[in-house]
Parts: sequence; C-alpha cells; structure tokens
Amino acid sequence: MAVHPFRTLSVEETKIARDVILGLHHDVVVDFREIYLKEPNKDGMKEYLDLEHAAKLSPTSKRPPRLAKCQYDVVGKDRIPEYHESVVDVDSKQRVKHEVIGKEHHASLTLWEFQILIEACKKSELWQKAVAEIQLPEGFELVVEPWPYGGLDLDSENRRYFQGLCFAQDTRNGNADSNFYAYPLPLIPILDAHKKEIIRVDKLATGGKGDPLTGKSHVERVIDHCQSSEYVPELVPGGLRKDLKPINITQPEGASFKITDESLVEWQKWRFRVSFNPREGAVIHDVHYDGRSVLYRLSMSEMTVPYCDPRPPFHRKQAFDFGDGGAGNCANNLSLGCDCLGLIKYFDGVVVDSAGEPRVHPNVICLHEQDNGIGWKHTNWRTGRAVVTRYRELVVQFIITLANYEYVFAYKFDQAGGITIEVRATGIVSCVNIDPGKTSDYGNVVSGGVLAQNHQHIFCARIDPAIDGHNNSVLHEESHTAPWDKATNPQGNFYEVKKTIVNRSAGLDAAPQHNRVFKVINPNKKNPVSGNPVAYKFTPPPTQKLLASPGSIQYNRALFGQHHVWVTKYQEDELYAAGRFTLQSQLERGGVADMVKRNDEVTNEDVVLWSVFGLTHNPRVEDWPVMPVDIFQVNFRPSDFFTGNPAIDVPSQKNMASVLVDDKKDCCATGKL
Amino acid sequence: MAVHPFRTLSVEETKIARDVILGLHHDVVVDFREIYLKEPNKDGMKEYLDLEHAAKLSPTSKRPPRLAKCQYDVVGKDRIPEYHESVVDVDSKQRVKHEVIGKEHHASLTLWEFQILIEACKKSELWQKAVAEIQLPEGFELVVEPWPYGGLDLDSENRRYFQGLCFAQDTRNGNADSNFYAYPLPLIPILDAHKKEIIRVDKLATGGKGDPLTGKSHVERVIDHCQSSEYVPELVPGGLRKDLKPINITQPEGASFKITDESLVEWQKWRFRVSFNPREGAVIHDVHYDGRSVLYRLSMSEMTVPYCDPRPPFHRKQAFDFGDGGAGNCANNLSLGCDCLGLIKYFDGVVVDSAGEPRVHPNVICLHEQDNGIGWKHTNWRTGRAVVTRYRELVVQFIITLANYEYVFAYKFDQAGGITIEVRATGIVSCVNIDPGKTSDYGNVVSGGVLAQNHQHIFCARIDPAIDGHNNSVLHEESHTAPWDKATNPQGNFYEVKKTIVNRSAGLDAAPQHNRVFKVINPNKKNPVSGNPVAYKFTPPPTQKLLASPGSIQYNRALFGQHHVWVTKYQEDELYAAGRFTLQSQLERGGVADMVKRNDEVTNEDVVLWSVFGLTHNPRVEDWPVMPVDIFQVNFRPSDFFTGNPAIDVPSQKNMASVLVDDKKDCCATGKL
Repeated sequence: MAVHPFRTLSVEETKIARDVILGLHHDVVVDFREIYLKEPNKDGMKEYLDLEHAAKLSPTSKRPPRLAKCQYDVVGKDRIPEYHESVVDVDSKQRVKHEVIGKEHHASLTLWEFQILIEACKKSELWQKAVAEIQLPEGFELVVEPWPYGGLDLDSENRRYFQGLCFAQDTRNGNADSNFYAYPLPLIPILDAHKKEIIRVDKLATGGKGDPLTGKSHVERVIDHCQSSEYVPELVPGGLRKDLKPINITQPEGASFKITDESLVEWQKWRFRVSFNPREGAVIHDVHYDGRSVLYRLSMSEMTVPYCDPRPPFHRKQAFDFGDGGAGNCANNLSLGCDCLGLIKYFDGVVVDSAGEPRVHPNVICLHEQDNGIGWKHTNWRTGRAVVTRYRELVVQFIITLANYEYVFAYKFDQAGGITIEVRATGIVSCVNIDPGKTSDYGNVVSGGVLAQNHQHIFCARIDPAIDGHNNSVLHEESHTAPWDKATNPQGNFYEVKKTIVNRSAGLDAAPQHNRVFKVINPNKKNPVSGNPVAYKFTPPPTQKLLASPGSIQYNRALFGQHHVWVTKYQEDELYAAGRFTLQSQLERGGVADMVKRNDEVTNEDVVLWSVFGLTHNPRVEDWPVMPVDIFQVNFRPSDFFTGNPAIDVPSQKNMASVLVDDKKDCCATGKL
Repeated sequence: MAVHPFRTLSVEETKIARDVILGLHHDVVVDFREIYLKEPNKDGMKEYLDLEHAAKLSPTSKRPPRLAKCQYDVVGKDRIPEYHESVVDVDSKQRVKHEVIGKEHHASLTLWEFQILIEACKKSELWQKAVAEIQLPEGFELVVEPWPYGGLDLDSENRRYFQGLCFAQDTRNGNADSNFYAYPLPLIPILDAHKKEIIRVDKLATGGKGDPLTGKSHVERVIDHCQSSEYVPELVPGGLRKDLKPINITQPEGASFKITDESLVEWQKWRFRVSFNPREGAVIHDVHYDGRSVLYRLSMSEMTVPYCDPRPPFHRKQAFDFGDGGAGNCANNLSLGCDCLGLIKYFDGVVVDSAGEPRVHPNVICLHEQDNGIGWKHTNWRTGRAVVTRYRELVVQFIITLANYEYVFAYKFDQAGGITIEVRATGIVSCVNIDPGKTSDYGNVVSGGVLAQNHQHIFCARIDPAIDGHNNSVLHEESHTAPWDKATNPQGNFYEVKKTIVNRSAGLDAAPQHNRVFKVINPNKKNPVSGNPVAYKFTPPPTQKLLASPGSIQYNRALFGQHHVWVTKYQEDELYAAGRFTLQSQLERGGVADMVKRNDEVTNEDVVLWSVFGLTHNPRVEDWPVMPVDIFQVNFRPSDFFTGNPAIDVPSQKNMASVLVDDKKDCCATGKL
C-alpha cells in the first residue's frame, strides 16, 4: 500500500527532495532550513478520503502527489543570502513550485543560527569589552541565550538580527545544569546574522519603581545580590521530599487504541491521523467519530509572548514560538514514564540539518489513554442502583522548549464525542536583573536580583471543521434575560436563546456574560431528534486579549490577538494566524486579520475557525525557579450531532485493581496493604 | 485523646443529643429532621488550634464543647407542626440554645417527607381522576418524583407544599431501573404536607413554538410518541462497547497520605481535617501547608437550579440543593473501583431518621491520590537534560443525587500549594412532555416527546481564608493597556497592573477582559523575596449570572446569583449563601446579599469569600439519557505566599510501570505486550 498522503515525510522522501533542490542550484551554497510535507490540496484530498472512507481505495486509485516543502537560503559570494521556498514532487522528483522570498520577510530561525550568535560574541571586541565591565564573581561563566529580535528599530535593509539574553552560570558545583537564569546580566548583544558580527550591545535598565527607563551605564558586580535557584534534583537545597509513593498506571490487557501505518489512530469509535511538522508540531487530520466526519484538520497555529516592560529594548521581547522558531523544531524527545504514564505510543519526526541531511527526531509525539474521573453517573434513588462510567481520554501530546520556557500541548479525545485542546505553560519565566532592594511596576522580584517581567501568552488554535461534510456554517448562541410580559413571560423566569449566524468572515469575541457559545453547524443536515442542524460547539475561553497599545509594534505584529474567534473561508495554505513570516515582522501580513478582510461569505461554505486564548502572566514568586503548570483548555463538543450521549455504551464495570485503605492497620504509614 | 472539635458527630453523640431533646418535649410527638455537629465558635476554636499546631494540647487543655444541632418538628394535635432548632451540649447533656422557627420559614425537606407525597397521591381522588385521563399504555406504571415547591403562589398561611413531577415507567422489561424519565406526564400533584393531602393537580402545557403558555386540558395518550431511553447496561440498545481495556491504578508502596482520628488528613505538607454534615456534605477545616495556615474552612455553600420555561407552573422549578434537601443527605454511598480508582479511603457520615435514631451513612466521602499529567518541566536545551515532575493531587470527593440529577464535588490539593474546587454536573436532565413533531423556545427535544428545559446551575463555594492568620484583606488586581507616553511607555508595550483593595463588604464581579484576579492577602506579613504581602489568589470563573428578571421569584430567592464574588466579614453561623431557609422561600433572607448590607470594614479583618459560578445549561441531544460530565473548576493558588515553587522538591523519578507500545508487534490488537 502506498504511503498515506497525510503521513509525515520520511527520511527517504526528504533526501529525494533535498537532492532535487541541490540539483537545481549550481555554483552557490544551499543552506537548508526545513524540508517537510507540503500537505495535499484539499480538493484532491477530499476525493481520496471519500474513497478511503468508502473502503474503495485501490492501488490504482488517484492519489495526491507526495510533496516536500523545502526552505533554504541560497548563499552567494559577498551578498545577503536569498531565502527560497520550493515544493518538490517526491514521486516525480520534480520541483513544482519555486518562490524567492522578498527581503521584507525573514525565514524562521534555525537552531544552527543560534550558534552564529555564540561564535560572533566570542569574536567581538565590542562584546568582550562590555562583558569585561561586569566583573563576574569567581567561578561564574557567561551564558548567551539567543532570542529572535522584535521591535521596530531595524535598518533600512531589514537585515537579519538576533539578540542574546545573557546570564552567568555558577560553575563551582560542577553541574552543567546549574540554573543560570538566577543570574541575569544587563547586556544584550545584537547580531547581524548575515555579517556574523555583533553590531551593538544594548545596556539594560536594572532600576525599580521611579527609576528612569534608560539602560544602566555601569554594569559591574550586578549579580552579587543574586541567589542560587536550582531545580535539578541533585542541587535542590534540602533535597527532595521523600514521602511521595508511586502511582502506577498499568494496562494489563493492552491499549484500547490501534495504530496503523504510523499515522492512523483508531480508538473508541474515533479515527484520525497524526502527522508532525517542524512548525506546528503534532497535527491531527481527518477526524471521524463512528464513521462520521468531524474535523478536516486540527493544529496549534501560532502563539505570541509579548513582554510589557516599557524600558527599551524590552519591547523587542516578543516571541512567536510557532512562526519564529517552529514548535516542531523545539519539540522535546519524550521519555517513557516521565512525560506520560501507562502504555505509550511514540511518533517520530524528521528534521534536517543545514546540508539538508535528514535525521529522525525521535519520540516527538506521545499517545496514550488516561482516566479523567467520572464520565457520567446516575443513581436511581428508589432502587439504589448506581450506574457510573469513567471518563477515558486519548491524548496526543507534544512538548516544546523555547530557551527558558516550556509548553505542553495536547489534543484529547473522549468517549462522549468531545475534543479538548489543552495547553500547559511551564518552564522558567523570562527574567532580567534588578538592583538590590528594589521592586518594579514591570514585573515581580522572584529571587534576589531577579525581576520576572509581566507578559502575556496568546495562543491560537486552528480548527478546520468538517461537520458531516465540508460545507458548514458558524453561528453564536447567547442566553438573555427576557422582558417581563404577561403573555410570554408572566413570572419573569424566561430567558431567551438568541442565535446569530456569522454570514461573512470576521473576528469575534467571547461574551461569557451572555453565555456566548459558537456552533459549527452543517446547515444541510438535521438532527432527527431535535430538528436542529447537526453541530459541534465551543465556548471561547474569555481570556484577556493582547494588551499592547494599538499601533505599537507588539500589537501590529500580532493582530490575531485582538479577537477570541476568527471565522474565515478555507483557502489553500492559510495555516498561520500571524502569517507565514513572523520573525522580525513589523506587521501581521497574511494572518487572520488579512484573511477576514476578504469579507468572504461563510455560510454553507468550507469554513475555518481560529480560537485565540491566553494568559496574562504577572509572575508569582511561586513561579520560580520552574513554574507549576498553568492549564488552559478549549472544549469542542457535539451539540445535536448525535442522537444521544455517545458514551452511553461505555461499560460501567468495577475496576478490580482499586484497594481500600485501612487506616486502622496503619497501612499508610508503612506502605503495606 | 478527646474527640477533635471538628470531627463529625458520632452515632453515640447523636443519640445523647436526641435523648436530651426528647426529654425536653413532653406530650408531643417530636419528628426529627437532622442532628449534626454544631461547629465550635471560631474564637474558642482559634485558641484550641493554636495549641494544637504548637503541639501543646494536653488532656487538661480547654476544649470547645461538643455541640449537636438538632432540627425537629414538634407535632401537637390538630395544629400545624412547629419547627424547632436546638443546640445540645453533648458533654454536659444540656440544651444550650433553643429556637422556634417562625411560620415564614420552612425546614429543609427530609426524604421521609417524600413518602408522604407518594402516599397522599395514592389516597387522593382528585389525583386518581387526573391520572385516569392519561390512559397509560399497557405495561406502564406511574412514577411520582417529589420536588420542592418554588414560586410565589402560596396561601396566606405559608403552608408546607411539595410538588410531584410525574413519569411513566415501562415495566414490561421487568427492570426496576428502566428509565422512566423518557415518559414525562403533563400533571403535577401539589401536596399540603401538613394535611397530607393533594390539594391541586396542575396540568402542564405540552405545546411547542407559538402555542399558548397554558396547561393541556386533555392529557390522554400523551406518551405514545415517547421512546425508550435506557442507560442501565443490560438495557442499552445494541449492548455496550467491547473494545475498552482496563486502566489500573496501583500504589504498590501504599498511599502517600495519612489519616488520624478519622478526620485529620496529612499529605505532601498539607494538613487539614474533613468532616461531613447533612447540608454541605464534605467540609474541609483548618488547612495548613508546611505548618502555615491557609484556610479556616472550605465548603460548598449553596446552589440553585432555576428553570427558564415561562409556562406556569414551571417557574416553581427552582431547586436549592443544599438548603432545600441537603447535599449531605443526598450523598451517594461510594463504591470501590467505580467512583474513584487507586487506593481509596472512605469517610462515613451519620444521619438520623424521624425518631432521631442515628445510623452510619457509609462511604459518603472518598479520598484518594491521582496523577494529573505534568506538574512542571524544564529542559536545558544546551545539555539536553530534562527535569519533569508529575502533578499529583489529593482529592476529597462526594457525589449527590437529587432525583434525576447528579453532582460530583471535589476539593483537590496539589503539591504546588494549590487548592481546586471542582464540580461535575451529570445525571438525567429534567424534562417535560412535548407534543409530537413540535419544538420549543424553552428547551430542546432530546427524545421523542421529551423536552429538556433550559435551566441554569448557580453554585456558591464558601472560602473562609486564614492566610498566615485570621486577619486578612481582599484586593483585586487588573491588567490594563497603558497610554502611550514618551517618558513612561515609549513603545506602547507597557500594561499596568492596578490593585484595588476591597474596603467594605461587597458583591463583586469577574472581569476577564481585564484579567481580574482576586487576592486574599495578609497585610501584616510580607513575602521576603518580592516584598508583597503574602497571598492566595483566585480568578473567578466569569460564568453567566442568574438570568431571571429582577423582581421575579427566581431572582429574589437567589440574590447570591447576582455576583461572582462576595466578600463579607466573618460572623458566627453565616455559612449559607442563600440564607438558612431556602425551601419555599420568597426572598433570600440572611444570605450574602443581606450580609454585605452591613457594610462591614473588611480590611485586616476575618474575611470570608464566596465564589459564585455556574452553567447556563441549554441541553444538547447528547445530554440524553444521562449527560456526560460538564466540569467547572475554581483554582485557589498561592501568590507570593511561598518563597519559591513549593513543588520544586517533588521527585522527578521515572515511573517504571510505564510501557512502550510496540505496534509493529500488533500488541494493541491482541492486548499482549
């Protein structure tokens, strides 16, 4: 059987694509950035999937070509590298599309570019001189943490820059994982990535309330008041707690899911495919429940993390973790018994180095089942008969590390037809140096000399629905107090449910005061029980929108952060809420704000929903040195899609492994049962 | 050692209290309603707890008396029973307080009162005549479901009424748990509970859109278009799914918690007591983390469920599940391996019958640990070293059944100092009959002839904080876009964090658009790291408030539903958000709306927080016949209470029971590993 069109590009396919590109560019150096699956056009894919779901696929069926998106710099002598994007047909070994990206855009960064910053610092006299001023204490070593360069103050050539956030690491304990974020240095070297030169060193303000916004002129002895803040177990002061006994999750009869062809997942009437790419990480395709279509595609599209500290150059701290660096690139290689428990299936990704040489990026996605408490219950109080089922979930999880910070992304499927998008924020909060004894309006002092700056995390999930087919509409439904009326509301207890169809592409907001719920309906199909169109619904989390002032650079780059829900008409290749190019962007281009400007009709059309949610994160001391997870969820649930609770047939068997604690026997203290 | 003052009243203590009461009332019948612990006054308790926490308690230490609250009817000849509340000192066997409750109030209902309705129906000619009209199909039997009687239309004597929602049960399958809610009958018998007579039969409207609000005059053959809707496993059509394999949760070394004296729970630096009473169910007392006080008391205070159907008499469908019937009374006797998994500790309650005879109400609370995914993680991308800990929770859970409906309440403690209040709503949605082929503005047709009426669930949790002591203040903190300003906000990226102290008792609202967070601070103690007062914070869920029109009976009875957060000054015996007496109430009296009218100073005082949240529930077809859980959470988290992440010392050991799925070996299909 041929490879499924949604399957992640293999090492072999990647090599073919690389070789095609190399064969087309002579007398130049080609520095590869990414090679990954260019997903098939939806039109062709619909035909293919119709055959697949009708079990009519045959070796001679028409199959969309396997395409590779190749992103690379073409490096000539004495000129700024040109950034190219090509699409290669892997089957025919032909380039089918070629685009030279204009200088107004920048390619996403690659991890090998970080190394350029480190090397440039080592060679830079400017930098060495600045660092020498600091007078690091004995045993401390400089650490430069490369970051994308936000902000407006670029030169006219729009050259490619990186900035380095700097820290000192205490090497006296001989532990390479000693937490250097506890010792922030008030210097930022700026790299011109093409020249491979440090062009400037920004000195950072370290003052507190009432102090000026300008940078510090003297930077010596700035970490003498900082304190050790270790998190690796062997360095945690006082050691680890010893009274935590293991919880084991075992599945003696095996997993309830089935994986075929390294991409098809079948579990509890759900059927979908998983793929992985360097930008979005795990992507979910072609989601069906009990043979009925629910989603065409589900992904995390973008996120931005703007920092609120008004002291220049901190306005340049605004990461776009999907567009700037690639969530897939930053995905952790997950580890059994750590990142998820029970019976685990891992999926691998494929990444390339600058020579285009692919390698397997192992265990970047984990898949497992988990128990989430009670699923449904009813007790007949007359007979005493209780029927209780558990809430079993299937979790597709990936975790990314972006310098100091971590996100855990999960797509969870449940037995009641629900899909939950979950984000957990953890890791080390980004911090800067603050003078001894001072406090700040721009963040919280979380350790001696460490100011954790206030910031936001604005996420955008992209939901491409296919509710019983591709032609869907979107409406929102609100509940409103009805006016008193002798005829229609004589007792004042009536509230009205008001429905509003979204006719044109638009950015819309949560309205929890009205219980605003968004529904994706199939206007062509009615639920036989209720008479309503079949639908899935979701309540947008009414989290705070992006706070930076209109017209500011942070605002302009992330226009997607101005609404909770965007509704657009499907167009090929519109996957990214803040546009294709976010690195060093000055304005969101080709993002959702542009998409809705087309003012497309979106009723009974192929619609796409974008769910924006986030966290205004004004750090607590408890977020230091590694923050406990903050959890966000978006629930996508059937609403008159089925003819009853889809989980009504979940068995209510008693779990025989559960054990009664007999505290009279002091079992808890001894651990014996 | 003497019984701890917070410990649930024992069977023996209950008997003593009962005997004291019986000895004081001669020549009358005493019908008991409840006997349960009257918790000690806080003043006396503070002294006791100070000694306890200083390990200075001795057998001669002053101990608050063990008090029993006794609620009972005094039934004389030919007059309406009088409702009394007395407090008995169990040690001295003396009544220390006695109150005859005025006729304007009604005692909570007891389950034995339900039987009066059933019996009265059987004897009522009025009712028999009404029922005879229906012409139930062969093999169907009448079921009368007793409900509290809301609404304004009471007689001048404010007599005690109950109403019966009626259904028919298909007995042909011989299964006593066949779901009768699928066959709603449009009749409501009204009981005068004192006369024990059916005084009226209300006929219900069964129309749809455009039909009048008035009741049906002809009620024959009204369930012929209804359909079987079974949920007990043996009756589910098509049987149960067979591909769900067990997840076992085992704790081979035992539980990490320790229980002492059937009330004290110690787990992962947490230390608190659990008690149980018939009104609030599980109550949490005297919560400490690592020796520091966090809460004095935590409980679910009240909830109300108003229905929006404007057709009289549906405005009378408004349950107060804590005040009307008692969550503790309705608590399920939990079952090993069903309601929670792993190593389970159960707590019992004590309830009385109308003779005051106590019996153990077994397994009304369960306590267990669970794994909730990743707790915190950081990977040092330079070294590749990942440190990841799990998020372990300790869960105190109880579940109540109220006729058709279920709630799962849980207090969850985590290792990062957080406390989560969780409510899961499940069970069978309340429904009424609707004519064939019709749809309604008042709800959704979820099965043939079954209209699930739109309604709300408004919950109120009572949080009595003691953040490092009893004198606390409350503030709310918002994040606001700051104005552009060359000197203070030159790049437009600054947002301001604005704090507002709550000076006087008040009802306040969520404001997610401003990221409004409420903090309970101890103004007398600063965090040594940040310089901020030590605090716990919570973000009120911005759920829709009660929708019934101002001045309506539903509105007046539940004034607590008009704000998300109420801040009051502590007063003895103020535990109930909608007041002591909710059954047949016409207006919330002595509830939070009255409490805040005192306009108490609440800075650096003993404050109480009331968190109101809920669900506007416009049912889906998927909610039938038993709805999948809807989950609500309120998170109460440290905010500069500690000097770092309290979970930083949680071990990051690899769980050795986790297993890799090898799909190449087809393990998933065969279940062998």
